[in-house]
Amino acid sequence: MEVPPPLVLKRPLYVPSKTLMGPGPSNCSQRVLEAMSNPILGQLHPECLQIMDEIKEGIKYIFQTLNDATMCISGSGHSGMEAAMSNLIEDGDVVLTGICGIWGHRAADMARRYGADVRYVEASFGRSLSLEEIKFAFHTHKPRVFFMAQGDSSTGILQGHIREIGELCRQYDCFLVVDVVASLGGTEFFMDEWKVDVAYTGSQKALGAPAGITPISFSKRALTHIRQRKTKPKVYYFDILLVGQYWGCYGMPRIYHHTISSTLLYGLREALANFCAMGLKSVVHRHKECSTRLQLGIEELGLEMFVAHESERLSTVNAIKVPFGVDWRKVAEYAMRKYNLEISGGLGPTVEHVFRIGLMGENATVEKVDMVLSILHEAIQSIKQRAPNVERSKI
Amino acid sequence: MEVPPPLVLKRPLYVPSKTLMGPGPSNCSQRVLEAMSNPILGQLHPECLQIMDEIKEGIKYIFQTLNDATMCISGSGHSGMEAAMSNLIEDGDVVLTGICGIWGHRAADMARRYGADVRYVEASFGRSLSLEEIKFAFHTHKPRVFFMAQGDSSTGILQGHIREIGELCRQYDCFLVVDVVASLGGTEFFMDEWKVDVAYTGSQKALGAPAGITPISFSKRALTHIRQRKTKPKVYYFDILLVGQYWGCYGMPRIYHHTISSTLLYGLREALANFCAMGLKSVVHRHKECSTRLQLGIEELGLEMFVAHESERLSTVNAIKVPFGVDWRKVAEYAMRKYNLEISGGLGPTVEHVFRIGLMGENATVEKVDMVLSILHEAIQSIKQRAPNVERSKI
Repeated sequence: MEVPPPLVLKRPLYVPSKTLMGPGPSNCSQRVLEAMSNPILGQLHPECLQIMDEIKEGIKYIFQTLNDATMCISGSGHSGMEAAMSNLIEDGDVVLTGICGIWGHRAADMARRYGADVRYVEASFGRSLSLEEIKFAFHTHKPRVFFMAQGDSSTGILQGHIREIGELCRQYDCFLVVDVVASLGGTEFFMDEWKVDVAYTGSQKALGAPAGITPISFSKRALTHIRQRKTKPKVYYFDILLVGQYWGCYGMPRIYHHTISSTLLYGLREALANFCAMGLKSVVHRHKECSTRLQLGIEELGLEMFVAHESERLSTVNAIKVPFGVDWRKVAEYAMRKYNLEISGGLGPTVEHVFRIGLMGENATVEKVDMVLSILHEAIQSIKQRAPNVERSKI
Repeated sequence: MEVPPPLVLKRPLYVPSKTLMGPGPSNCSQRVLEAMSNPILGQLHPECLQIMDEIKEGIKYIFQTLNDATMCISGSGHSGMEAAMSNLIEDGDVVLTGICGIWGHRAADMARRYGADVRYVEASFGRSLSLEEIKFAFHTHKPRVFFMAQGDSSTGILQGHIREIGELCRQYDCFLVVDVVASLGGTEFFMDEWKVDVAYTGSQKALGAPAGITPISFSKRALTHIRQRKTKPKVYYFDILLVGQYWGCYGMPRIYHHTISSTLLYGLREALANFCAMGLKSVVHRHKECSTRLQLGIEELGLEMFVAHESERLSTVNAIKVPFGVDWRKVAEYAMRKYNLEISGGLGPTVEHVFRIGLMGENATVEKVDMVLSILHEAIQSIKQRAPNVERSKI
């Protein structure tokens, strides 16, 4: 043996308990965590397929869809984006992505790798896209696929007008992909009514499930298109004709496509069960109320939300401007060190500019809102006091 | 709300405890299962990165490699195959796949989707490839990438000669991809010494970790090639320059690439710790001993191994010919119904022809071998007695 066994693996596993109020993952409930200690099941055992069927029903409910092609991709939220892009796109297709933060760029990166001709429609800084901007972009680019995130976790922007965009897509014979990774559960979403062709969400956000398994759904229209592709989708692992056959979506005998993680299925199943028991309307209402309370508190602290217009603020991921002269890193470190509380910095266009506070799932409660406000205030005051010279020199 | 909450999610989660002695997943130890109930960590929290670092060291040990580009793909074993193919292949590259079961075909399917010019070298039925067959295929096709599975779980075939194939690949300026999903821990594997360019394994086999996270390693030579690609790899999610940067492989600051499942990291970390504590040599020895004991028992029962040559038998997944006139499904059903024991049927070329018995991780013990032999015998006898007419009519 040239390579010896590593000494680090002789130490016990160390996992501290934290309150995760960044942009995700959020905390899982005890019910979800405990479910994941259940014994492993084979990927085609009837009990495993039963759990998958239950998960499918849960996804249909939270997406408000009757789509047969409703399933999970065995990967993180990014793999949902990959599945949407790789199944829809053929070489040379014009893909238009709406940009309100990093996610439109990420979708563009993926689409380009799959051979798409990528175009952008970019919102003003800190704003969502207006319907007029989108209409103009459609007129200019005549896209085959339009991508947008309902909630952009990098900026805390909520993109509205999905119903109207759904109509627009039909007029242009375009497929509408909506990323609801960060928004689902925090705002209304009606996949069928709004004529959305592909939607996927993050398990580890408002749902409160573990990361690593991504609910996704394809409309009948999208499915028909995929069945008529000239070439196979470029990725076997994300090929939803195969994944969907494994998930029993098409009334055909199940096939072995990959070895699904039964552990993650247990966690997702329990999170969905919990979500369904509370009811979609009530969950959305709670997330909105918590965000409103947070926004009021932020104002009272003399701080400012990054997104100027209230109606364009995402309830799940709240972006708050870092006060002038304050180092966000020190604030985040303070909260983590003293309270095991995660408050996050910005990402992409908001790096260095904002704090991001996640109010999702288990952490979307009045108590958590008040706690995070109080700790944020304390942390900022403490940082200011400790570095008065630095602060003054910046002013 | 058009779609009501599903009633099935009001029922409690049901997960029976089974002994998984099919081709995988195998059972996780209690230590691994319990680890997965730990609270969630963020994907860039220092404690999470620490666990990832520990996992990297563990993978280097079990692969016997010093490769910097050692990490995990957040997906099932299939995603390891995707990562190998999508990073190495550019349009038009000749990819040669060795076929001893279904895995060479699966790799070919993936490679073709990525634009490769795919060729095959196929072993005789029930045999592994001889070095001469492989040399002849190299001479004929001059491949850029050669794929083979060290262990093909569909047939129970062990492919040897990897050291010699490694040399051959250097002569032809070809990259060697070895799938050790089903073989690692059950037979020797020396990634560096044998000059393997890409290797990946299944977490849920001899390692005894949960499915859904796939250890993978790229040689320096492969990495250099990937850095010099003319085009970006076609899949962002599998782009190992990005994944590896997240895993801290290249001495550059970590980036956020995707939200890793901390839950699966805990399970994998504990499985690796357990594996390392036992030691690679001892683990391999135990798997081989168990397989030998099983093979002797199979002979004593008057049954026959599918792979004729002892040296070409995989120790982890053992393929046994279904006796004439016996319906394998009924045998498997009997074992499951009466003992909650999984014995599997064939896959691909072995469908209907073999039982597959997995001796992996927790289930590679003398006691489990004796148990599975006894139950297999009982099940076959019971099926024979219950359907004497059918049996006779076939004879």
